[in-house]
This record gives sequence, structure tokens and C-alpha cells, in this order.
Amino acid sequence: MFGRIDHVGLAVSDLEEAIDLHVNVYGLALVHRETVESQGVEAALLDVGENHVELLAPLHDDTPVGKFLAKRGPGMHHVAYEVADLPAAIDQLASDGAELIDEAPRKGLFGLQVAFVHPDSAHGVLSEIVTDGQ
Amino acid sequence: MFGRIDHVGLAVSDLEEAIDLHVNVYGLALVHRETVESQGVEAALLDVGENHVELLAPLHDDTPVGKFLAKRGPGMHHVAYEVADLPAAIDQLASDGAELIDEAPRKGLFGLQVAFVHPDSAHGVLSEIVTDGQ
Repeated sequence: MFGRIDHVGLAVSDLEEAIDLHVNVYGLALVHRETVESQGVEAALLDVGENHVELLAPLHDDTPVGKFLAKRGPGMHHVAYEVADLPAAIDQLASDGAELIDEAPRKGLFGLQVAFVHPDSAHGVLSEIVTDGQ
Repeated sequence: MFGRIDHVGLAVSDLEEAIDLHVNVYGLALVHRETVESQGVEAALLDVGENHVELLAPLHDDTPVGKFLAKRGPGMHHVAYEVADLPAAIDQLASDGAELIDEAPRKGLFGLQVAFVHPDSAHGVLSEIVTDGQ
């Protein structure tokens, strides 16, 4: 059902330093930046082959990424898998007993349509399924 | 320098349950299993497109993955990027100031040649670079 890893999401406290590492040391291409006030996040998207790295920095402490950083420190936040048909994938996961955070597709960062699977039903891994919303 | 995401490594406490989720719910193909006593780990490799998911379960509590689980619980453990020339990538990372756990390629799981970058120099992310050792 899952086509490939779309991206790994990394929670960082200093977005500029994290971009510098990924661009100037790892050699990835910075392709998008986006600030989403409603999610309290400033994000950067980098290409690595067909896959991506999504860097997430909180706009405030009282945001999902801010709370993640306060609890766990910077590090890996989630993994996202590409699916061809997001509504069908959501239905399939639900029927297989996965606990979905989003029971319908919603708009994620960078124009993607997304849904999240709760880490409690995925061995502690916040897991996202995405399809290209363009 | 980095070609694609080779895999995400997930630390799990129950390998059979984690395999079941990834094969029977996510639809990934289980391609290898391996127990490495010297690393204290039982591992499973699954294909997702050109990428992979590596499931890691500890053989004992007093192992790197066992200590990770005790400290953080199950979840995302590391991300691995594919590079064409591992020794050259190690040299480049070192000259750019990255703190390497492995200063020379070593044999990783599933026949890969690998080196790890310390999370302290990668925003809390245990990062691996790999090249196909076949």
C-alpha cells in the first residue's frame, strides 16, 4: 500500500542551523520554506533523491513541535509514506485497526494532502501518509 | 552528497508485532531477517519502494537498542542516507566538522557498509550513511 518514504520529519530548535547542516554539509537542496501560524511551525523542505527531509521549528513553546522539543529534545519527529490514494489508504488502515489522528485527508505542509497515524498504534512512531496535492 | 533516504531505523520491543504491522497493514515486503549477537540486536528489513524500514529489537536490556528503549521507549531510532562513496563521504563530513561515531566504514546490518554521525552534531538525529556492500 505504501509506495516509498516521502520524508522524515525532524524537530529542531534552530531552523537556520539545521538548514545549514543539511544544505552545506549533507548537500541537500532546499526547495521550500513555509510558516504555518495555525500549526505554530516554521518548516523547510529539502530534497534527497526522490525523498525529502522536513525540518520543523516551533513558532512558540505552546505548539505541538514546541511541546515535543520540551519533552524529548530535538530529533526525529515522524516518518511519512507516500500513498497513491489517500482516502482509500485511510479506510484500509482504519479497517485494519490502526488508530488514526486524521480520519479524513487534511492539508499538510507544502501543499500535501496528509493523514497521521497515532504512535500508540505504530510502535511509538508518529507515522504520516501523504499524497501529492498538486 | 546524499543520494536518497536508504532507510529509517525503528526501535521496537516486539519484533513480531512490528513485522506484522508493516507487512499486513502497511503492505511492505519483508526481505531480510538477521540476528547479530555482537550488536545485541535482532533486525528485520522491509522494502518500501526504493527505500527500506529497518526494525530493531534488542536481544538483551544491556545493548544499545535495549538502552534506547529503556530511556525513550519504542520509536524512531535513526535515519540512513545512501552515498555512492562511503570513505569519501566520511572524509567530507569530518572536514565539515561533523562528529562521526565511525571514522572508517564498518560492516552494518544486511551486508551494508556504514558509518554513523553522532546525534550531537546532527540536531539530535542519529544519522547513518550507507553504501551497498554487495
